[in-house]
Amino acid sequence: MARRARAIRERQAATGVPASPHIRRALPFFDPLDPEQIEKIEEQVNWLIEDVGIAFRDDAHALRIWREAGARVEGDVVRAPADWIRAECAKAPSEFTQLARNPARSVTIGGANQVFAPIYGAPFVRDLEGGRRYGNMADFEKLVKLTYMHPALHHGGLVITEPTDVPVSKRHLDMLFAHMTLSDKPHLGAITERSRAQDSVDMAEIVFGREVMDANCVIMGNVNTNSPLLVDKVVTEAVYTYCGRGQGIVVVPFILSGAMGPVSTAASVAQAMAEALMVCAFAQIIRPGAPFVLGNFLSSMSLKSGAPTFGMPEPVMSNYAIGQLARRAGLPLRCGGSLTASKIEDAQAAYESADAMHSTMLAGANFVLHAAGWMEGGLCTGFEKLIMDADRLGSYQKILDQGLDCSDEAMARDAYGEVAPGGHFLGCGHTMRNYQTAFYEAQLSDSENVESWEEGGSLDMRARAHRRWQAMLESYEAPAMDAALREELEAFVARRKEALPDAWY
Amino acid sequence: MARRARAIRERQAATGVPASPHIRRALPFFDPLDPEQIEKIEEQVNWLIEDVGIAFRDDAHALRIWREAGARVEGDVVRAPADWIRAECAKAPSEFTQLARNPARSVTIGGANQVFAPIYGAPFVRDLEGGRRYGNMADFEKLVKLTYMHPALHHGGLVITEPTDVPVSKRHLDMLFAHMTLSDKPHLGAITERSRAQDSVDMAEIVFGREVMDANCVIMGNVNTNSPLLVDKVVTEAVYTYCGRGQGIVVVPFILSGAMGPVSTAASVAQAMAEALMVCAFAQIIRPGAPFVLGNFLSSMSLKSGAPTFGMPEPVMSNYAIGQLARRAGLPLRCGGSLTASKIEDAQAAYESADAMHSTMLAGANFVLHAAGWMEGGLCTGFEKLIMDADRLGSYQKILDQGLDCSDEAMARDAYGEVAPGGHFLGCGHTMRNYQTAFYEAQLSDSENVESWEEGGSLDMRARAHRRWQAMLESYEAPAMDAALREELEAFVARRKEALPDAWY
Repeated sequence: MARRARAIRERQAATGVPASPHIRRALPFFDPLDPEQIEKIEEQVNWLIEDVGIAFRDDAHALRIWREAGARVEGDVVRAPADWIRAECAKAPSEFTQLARNPARSVTIGGANQVFAPIYGAPFVRDLEGGRRYGNMADFEKLVKLTYMHPALHHGGLVITEPTDVPVSKRHLDMLFAHMTLSDKPHLGAITERSRAQDSVDMAEIVFGREVMDANCVIMGNVNTNSPLLVDKVVTEAVYTYCGRGQGIVVVPFILSGAMGPVSTAASVAQAMAEALMVCAFAQIIRPGAPFVLGNFLSSMSLKSGAPTFGMPEPVMSNYAIGQLARRAGLPLRCGGSLTASKIEDAQAAYESADAMHSTMLAGANFVLHAAGWMEGGLCTGFEKLIMDADRLGSYQKILDQGLDCSDEAMARDAYGEVAPGGHFLGCGHTMRNYQTAFYEAQLSDSENVESWEEGGSLDMRARAHRRWQAMLESYEAPAMDAALREELEAFVARRKEALPDAWY
Repeated sequence: MARRARAIRERQAATGVPASPHIRRALPFFDPLDPEQIEKIEEQVNWLIEDVGIAFRDDAHALRIWREAGARVEGDVVRAPADWIRAECAKAPSEFTQLARNPARSVTIGGANQVFAPIYGAPFVRDLEGGRRYGNMADFEKLVKLTYMHPALHHGGLVITEPTDVPVSKRHLDMLFAHMTLSDKPHLGAITERSRAQDSVDMAEIVFGREVMDANCVIMGNVNTNSPLLVDKVVTEAVYTYCGRGQGIVVVPFILSGAMGPVSTAASVAQAMAEALMVCAFAQIIRPGAPFVLGNFLSSMSLKSGAPTFGMPEPVMSNYAIGQLARRAGLPLRCGGSLTASKIEDAQAAYESADAMHSTMLAGANFVLHAAGWMEGGLCTGFEKLIMDADRLGSYQKILDQGLDCSDEAMARDAYGEVAPGGHFLGCGHTMRNYQTAFYEAQLSDSENVESWEEGGSLDMRARAHRRWQAMLESYEAPAMDAALREELEAFVARRKEALPDAWY
């Protein structure tokens, strides 16, 4: 580990950016559950799978597949021996690589790897100058560029905001084109309709070519189950389209504890596990070995209003619990993010995001959607918030990548030959050799004294973030792309747009 | 654990305040160091103690005590066999109780117990109305009242701000009198001069009586070593005064990594351990069994300005490391806090405070000074910040006190008999039985939708905190106190004030 930490430090010093396109964790995981707690939750998962069952709705084909595979199907409720479901799940890889257009940005998901991606699905955007408004394609493109440029974001996600000025029926085409051309980081595909998922897979095939795609994961879909205990057609069709083509899928039960699950963290975690494992088994029946990410999104509730709350003890605890359970299941995990209910980029937003994200990182979440930019319970993407969160992600990346360096150089024994009791280490040899890479340099934290800070205009973090993302966009340069490839993508988008009617649902 | 969690929940529901005056942790500790890392650091600690040595300066008496005890003293540098130092340290209790004037508020420090106290030592205060200014006695009294009233603060600390309108020579008397009369939570005593420490011990004896004090810890001093590797008279005199009377001491090497210690987290942690263990051994020689808290305060540095930075990966990692090392040493630990370099209560303040404090709580810090109210690298106490941080401490308390409840009731099996796939748990029996205690109700987080929030005046967390602390002070009622005791304390303070000259240093 010491040698690795040193190599990372040297590359960071040389390039100013993380050496890796994702995190390869040196820090151990935090496993807080004792064997009794694990047994209790896993028994409950088994009970939900075997006795209670999960409904697969509005998809007769899915029920047929389950029946033929040997499950017990009554109405649309599927029950099956938990051992068999777990055996199917074991066919999914415990880690896999999603290729990026730029091979240096390919990410490995699972195991000790952690990948951060921005917020997904917010219809609104907010920035300090423009205020809160519906997101549009111009906002979307800016957000793709910022995500591309930020070293602590490893993956583009997909719907960084909803470009609401584009018809829903065509929106996925413009979003995918933006990710594929303005960035060379990996990203997700659409899932809202089967044809849109298919378009995503087809466009990925244009970028990567059939042979590469046959042998690799190059795109993934991210879908929610319809908790409690319900899997709808959006999920099964995404499985057919993505996993059927050997591509990946992220399946996320979204549970507001007390509404879509019991008002208990342990029970809601068990329910989420049961739902996700059933879809994982289904995906493995469709295509053994298909990359699968077990998702978990648990939120707590305000008793005053029934509104979801974030960064609270219950979802923090669920992050820690699901991390340990997912590792036992041998499946890559998606959970957490920089989550908050705050409407603006204030202290509430930051406290809640940090507690949500600190637990997410320590829990070992392998794929973290919503790692930056999330505001207002997910309804709004903040331009400043994106950059502020990402600055903190860089801090988490250092903690995870390096752990505690205990190499001989780190122990600094020679320094004590130079420094007397009560003296200082500022100029000693060890300090001179190491100070440039010793500390994480946060871009948006101000550590000046109050006088300097006031002279600089008394800017709060939000104001500094506003300046920073604008400066970043000014220096944006698109990653290189083969002209013929770009034309082929353009032609595909144009052809599909012609074939599709404008529709706003 | 399940039964305990349930009892706590029931008491919380009944009283609205935490059942315990401190945290009795149900969550396991996070121990990230592997045996090789531990060995490396502990070897370095031993090497510093045996070969490099620690200077004890300006106190010939201390050197004499060391020499008589068998240490090797050259000049003022003390070296000793590490085994012997560790054997002396083993005489300190691994946990002890500090009595409060109100027995229901006594705290246990060490082991699985965690105690939160506010910021210590800031000369400035800031609030939304009054801005930034020197702290005075009126501010101090307000801060003592708020600390007394907040259920997530278990201990008063001492210098919540410096009351700069009172001469330094008399300040400790007014501060102690305020803590003793406006609050009934435990607090610290003064350390800046031996006579002030003695006044603190004498006033505590008035409150608790000689017999109780002979048999219990009722007051503690909190001192910094003069890193690197230097222990000055302030520390040794505090040891004589507090430990000599069987009272407690918290010894905290404050290391800005790269200045007062090597520019390496592991080396700075080892140095802090060596310094603290030497003082612990010294305290045990003075009074075997004296309550001792091993302190650690490590900060990182901005390369731009050399200013200390907080909430960064290096001090986060040092919290996790020192937690594990202190448990191995069998000593109660002080580290961390809600720390930030920000000048105001913005997102920077909250991100940094949350990352610093999340790691502090997970690391198992037993006594957390600076857990609320810290701003500007410790120079300024924020009224809003105090209340904002404390609201988050309540969240940490729930995580730690309860861990993950996996009781039969928490597994909610009966709920699945009532709720169909795709249905909801809002009105089911399990939810009705449990919703009132299921979620932490943050006081200062707004989870309303944007429309309601705007109707309410678009207040940020800082504005809500301002209203809240003012409302708290309006409803303040002093804890009951025997009139004769109060008079005795008043007479002591008056007598000492007459004897002491006004001095401003």
